[in-house]
Amino acid sequence: MRFVKGHGTENDFVVLPPGEAPAQLDASLVRALCDRRAGIGADGVLRVVEVGQTEGSDPTVRWFMDYRNADGSIAEMCGNGIRVFARYLVSARLAPPGRLRIATRAGVKDVDVPVRGDISVNMGVAERLDDAKVVVGDHRWEAAGWSMGNPHLVVVDVPDLDALDLARPPVIDPPQAYPDGANVEFVERLGDRHIRMRVHERGVGETRSCGTGACAAAVAVMDIRQERASYDVDVPGGRLVVAWREDGSVLLTGPAVLVAEGEYRRDATP
Amino acid sequence: MRFVKGHGTENDFVVLPPGEAPAQLDASLVRALCDRRAGIGADGVLRVVEVGQTEGSDPTVRWFMDYRNADGSIAEMCGNGIRVFARYLVSARLAPPGRLRIATRAGVKDVDVPVRGDISVNMGVAERLDDAKVVVGDHRWEAAGWSMGNPHLVVVDVPDLDALDLARPPVIDPPQAYPDGANVEFVERLGDRHIRMRVHERGVGETRSCGTGACAAAVAVMDIRQERASYDVDVPGGRLVVAWREDGSVLLTGPAVLVAEGEYRRDATP
Repeated sequence: MRFVKGHGTENDFVVLPPGEAPAQLDASLVRALCDRRAGIGADGVLRVVEVGQTEGSDPTVRWFMDYRNADGSIAEMCGNGIRVFARYLVSARLAPPGRLRIATRAGVKDVDVPVRGDISVNMGVAERLDDAKVVVGDHRWEAAGWSMGNPHLVVVDVPDLDALDLARPPVIDPPQAYPDGANVEFVERLGDRHIRMRVHERGVGETRSCGTGACAAAVAVMDIRQERASYDVDVPGGRLVVAWREDGSVLLTGPAVLVAEGEYRRDATP
Repeated sequence: MRFVKGHGTENDFVVLPPGEAPAQLDASLVRALCDRRAGIGADGVLRVVEVGQTEGSDPTVRWFMDYRNADGSIAEMCGNGIRVFARYLVSARLAPPGRLRIATRAGVKDVDVPVRGDISVNMGVAERLDDAKVVVGDHRWEAAGWSMGNPHLVVVDVPDLDALDLARPPVIDPPQAYPDGANVEFVERLGDRHIRMRVHERGVGETRSCGTGACAAAVAVMDIRQERASYDVDVPGGRLVVAWREDGSVLLTGPAVLVAEGEYRRDATP
């Protein structure tokens, strides 16, 4: 089975070209591919699926991103993954550079792919959720709730961000405010329109990068400052740029790097 | 740059075929290849180097294993790595199946590579070292010192092996007994000639498997029982077989799986 390995701000993926994977990609194959020691290793799999054209279907949408988490479960969207997906489409000449419209389980996303350089994706409209408190060890902070399709709690102006112990999940208080949990972003303001953050993803742990988390963090700070602007957001795995636009939508821009391509030996025999 | 990815009991390696890597493999390239998110990801790199034949050189030794740790440092030998290296040589038709003699920084090693199935390597003679105490949290155990080229301390009959917290390095007492540290193996006897172990590798942390550690653990138990035999050794990443022979040498047998092969884009552009 052919594959491509790539990452966006160190959020990494195995891309499966069209026709390489079984149409029913089973969870055990996803887990085997993503195994960091016995497999290729990744945070998730991006299967490239050609959208069949039927009368009345949108002729501008040619590719569907079938995104799976490393544990084999289905995920709706991924702001880092869709950039890697789009970079692959252009690199493999499955799409021309420029504006691509990519189908995901969270709807069609507009992605701008230059020949070289960072890729932008319209992540949709940020929506305000309830505030809550976030508890980490002896610390207890007020956090602003924001949805980017998935729920986030953003703690702004965390002192001594590096010292924060995120080995265990932050506790949300009251828990019933977020019965399914939330991603939690811890933000430090670095300067004019420049923040950095650490993120704890629900069900995963601390990660090197989270695209929706970067959007939520920047939007939370802009909301406090009552501005719509473009922010640099430093995450442990690199730098993203988040623009909050007048129409309410959030544009996420960042790198997407294809690292390797090859053949996976599914029937690897010892 | 072409590469092959493989593992032995989940100790994983990037194999660089002959001529693919620069002769002076620099540490930054090794770190980039082994990076588990921005690279291919592995515990180490195995560069395949053809040994030049000169008058008087051993004509049976054709390949040298240039082994590097993930941090770019040079390592002498690796019992899991050399099996992957040998499997690669046979798979790539660089050597016929059967007995291979592979040069390493720790000397020439005899490796038996069947067409299919587990690979055996003669790891040399086990030598007794000083005993010491090993401290983990509130526990304090007597440990037997053994060298397999590198130093090991083996704690036999650890109760509740799974509960052991190896997030921090075990403390060796007295420290001056092992000034350069040691790998520490924690062993549970499962039955006749069958043990399982967890291992903390010095400078690395807990790992899924350690070839020399499996040898040291089995030898320590055989020494207590005053026997020379063949033991199954279960490690977190799989099963190894360790035989201690009458001539004092230790034979390590286990799987070696080639998972993927491909092309690494060293100049990957975002």
